[in-house]
Amino acid sequence: MLKHSILLILLCTANLSAPLYAAKPPNIIIILADDLGYGDLSCYGHPTIRTPNLDRMAAEGMRFTDFYVAACVCTPSRAALMTGRLPIRIGMAGLSAPGHRDVLVPKDTGGLPLEETTIASALKTKGYATQCIGKWHLGHTPQLLPTHHGFDSFYGLRWSVDQEPNKGIPKNASARLDQKLEWWNDALLRDDKIIEQPTDLSTLTRRYTAEAIHFIEANKGRPFFLYFAHSYPHVPLFRSKDFEQHSLRGLYGDVVEELDWSVGQVFATLKKEGLDQNTFVFFTSDNGPWLTKDLAGGSAGPLRGGKGSTWEGGMREPGIARWPGKIPAGVVMHELACSMDLFNTCLALAGVAVPKDRVMDGVDMTPMLLGNGHSAREVMFYYRKDQLYAVRKGHYKAHLVTYDGYSPQPPVEHDPPILYDLNSDPSERFDIAGEQAEAVADIMREVEKHKRELVVGKPQF
Amino acid sequence: MLKHSILLILLCTANLSAPLYAAKPPNIIIILADDLGYGDLSCYGHPTIRTPNLDRMAAEGMRFTDFYVAACVCTPSRAALMTGRLPIRIGMAGLSAPGHRDVLVPKDTGGLPLEETTIASALKTKGYATQCIGKWHLGHTPQLLPTHHGFDSFYGLRWSVDQEPNKGIPKNASARLDQKLEWWNDALLRDDKIIEQPTDLSTLTRRYTAEAIHFIEANKGRPFFLYFAHSYPHVPLFRSKDFEQHSLRGLYGDVVEELDWSVGQVFATLKKEGLDQNTFVFFTSDNGPWLTKDLAGGSAGPLRGGKGSTWEGGMREPGIARWPGKIPAGVVMHELACSMDLFNTCLALAGVAVPKDRVMDGVDMTPMLLGNGHSAREVMFYYRKDQLYAVRKGHYKAHLVTYDGYSPQPPVEHDPPILYDLNSDPSERFDIAGEQAEAVADIMREVEKHKRELVVGKPQF
Repeated sequence: MLKHSILLILLCTANLSAPLYAAKPPNIIIILADDLGYGDLSCYGHPTIRTPNLDRMAAEGMRFTDFYVAACVCTPSRAALMTGRLPIRIGMAGLSAPGHRDVLVPKDTGGLPLEETTIASALKTKGYATQCIGKWHLGHTPQLLPTHHGFDSFYGLRWSVDQEPNKGIPKNASARLDQKLEWWNDALLRDDKIIEQPTDLSTLTRRYTAEAIHFIEANKGRPFFLYFAHSYPHVPLFRSKDFEQHSLRGLYGDVVEELDWSVGQVFATLKKEGLDQNTFVFFTSDNGPWLTKDLAGGSAGPLRGGKGSTWEGGMREPGIARWPGKIPAGVVMHELACSMDLFNTCLALAGVAVPKDRVMDGVDMTPMLLGNGHSAREVMFYYRKDQLYAVRKGHYKAHLVTYDGYSPQPPVEHDPPILYDLNSDPSERFDIAGEQAEAVADIMREVEKHKRELVVGKPQF
Repeated sequence: MLKHSILLILLCTANLSAPLYAAKPPNIIIILADDLGYGDLSCYGHPTIRTPNLDRMAAEGMRFTDFYVAACVCTPSRAALMTGRLPIRIGMAGLSAPGHRDVLVPKDTGGLPLEETTIASALKTKGYATQCIGKWHLGHTPQLLPTHHGFDSFYGLRWSVDQEPNKGIPKNASARLDQKLEWWNDALLRDDKIIEQPTDLSTLTRRYTAEAIHFIEANKGRPFFLYFAHSYPHVPLFRSKDFEQHSLRGLYGDVVEELDWSVGQVFATLKKEGLDQNTFVFFTSDNGPWLTKDLAGGSAGPLRGGKGSTWEGGMREPGIARWPGKIPAGVVMHELACSMDLFNTCLALAGVAVPKDRVMDGVDMTPMLLGNGHSAREVMFYYRKDQLYAVRKGHYKAHLVTYDGYSPQPPVEHDPPILYDLNSDPSERFDIAGEQAEAVADIMREVEKHKRELVVGKPQF
């Protein structure tokens, strides 16, 4: 008890005065899946997908039950993770007006503004080696690629794996379980050069993983930051020969199990190189499962909704943190946390100050990760495009607008808002706005404050 | 690899020739929850219910993803667990005819026939001390109580906790979250005597647990069998003072978390008494969550349906096996298994022969539990009352009839049957009967064979 208190005091003191790990900053790896659902891992209750490496990561680290992303689709979600800022502030939210989309498409010329600070550009100031592997989707003109956003190098796709179809492919080809490589014409880039087109999509996860291993080995002598953003299980689904018929769950399971294998390879490399004790690894996904893709899409488990929706299934994700000897093992963490908090957390771990010339939306998770068990985050904003759809404060969530992702039914406005208690009712079944007027009013005050103070960034697409 | 093969050979040889553990039979504890859903434990993905003791049990043992009970409501489910036989064979299924119910009610005089062999009566032949703690629900006349079915003693309720209401209580009182003790008049029995009425339902889990600890301590010198059948989280929900406001999930979570605490107390006692290495413990529930009880009912997680339904959520349950040094640790087991298999398994562990004068529906799980990883079970029959609603063979499940438990909508017949692949589609979303005609035909052959050979037992209620 006393020991615990002393630890807390030390942590708090350290946090107030000087950077925590400036002397020997840890390596940082963020592994991001694409469209993986809350219920898609064995350690989150999936009945047939086997994820022994992620399960072990959870057993050796901290598994979050209430970890969120900042948007229900990938471009804004990734922009927020990279910058610690709400997409609406930085022009990356998408527009609700007709003719606009919620993610960057090949004809767009905009992207993440160069004046934004990314995790990579922040860590560069402390001499970190930085690499982006996998899907970028934050701007695909040459001057907006990862190498212009703080990454020493880039190896991957500019956008989603379904954004370079060949002509004449079958209707709804991306969701087909009998995928064909020749339906797709994806370009694989190294830095700003196309090195393969069409890309062999079946070996993408394997080649990303080889690249990650190479990066870790090549940089073992200095601190490094690896942003490892897998292209799957976004549709169309492909996996390497070793993972064909690998999973009870079929093709989708094969793809997730290869991703799990990849996570295992990263940890094996860290151990082999003696870096395991000095590397912080965080695993999550960019948004919920694409439910309209049938069996080619994932599962939100007990949560309502999926990708494209601000119901919990669209924005609550698996979140697993591991750092042996620093993050306690086997913890199931119920505190509120968000992908934007990774920005502040990574900077704190590296001993870099968070920018003071702009509004930040992330909070530093290190006190929670390293010992005191409490999140500094109290509020979560659920945006869809440039509209605020819902707000969570504590365990209450008020919906101003609801929408079932990719549904032909238009969004439904709620005035007064509807309210759910996410602790007692995580599946959002029972509207309790009538009984909890003060909780609604409290959240509405947060909404007013947020809207009053918000400076909307210039739309980039 | 060689070591593994030798182990398998030893196991197979042992299995073919002589009882495995006749020399020093292990203690056996079956812990049964009431109406707990597939998704209600943290290790099965519940976002807010904390179950550290059951999570640890899973981490130290084997967690099943495909563990079933034999019926979607409690009386037949418990009859099957106790006897290793389908309820329809032993008169315990209930009748579909109007005016009949699916579980025993206080006015019934029938119950589990005395000529049936229970796990307890079988283990008694090898000198096991036997106790039944908690809910019985297999006959409540004096001659049908546990003490007439192989148990040395009984401490608990004759039926469900909601079956002795006081007069004049509110409508749907059992599902209320503002439960009042005075609404209920349950009788607590020791052996065949009522020792308390009304029973203080708030201390039931605590007192059951004290009784279990006492039984283990009192019998540490001989093999024992403890059938620990909790009365909760069946409604009405009560918990002791220590668990008030304990759970993020509210009252239902408090109740489950007290149950988890109880599991922890059992393991602590086994360790304290030096019995941990020689005790096989299995945890499961009798049927799925009672979805129509709103927040007083549980969650089936990603599975469809709940209590009263033959969709997966009604009959697939958490199933966790632990026996340090014998059952490998940290295994997520995807093989098919059923509560009826506990009968054969317990008898195999104790070195008791399975009755040969009757049709048995259980299979011995010890080869799967102790090392070879494969279940001898290939087929699962899903009965509702005396009607066969569905059949699973391998990973295919055909529904002949479907019913949403406790729904005003009547059951729907499917001729031809509808078919789901439970591996790729565990949530039963996509009927594939049209594409998998041979799988349907194969299951229909199982149905015909089963019906042809089935001798229906005389209905007991």
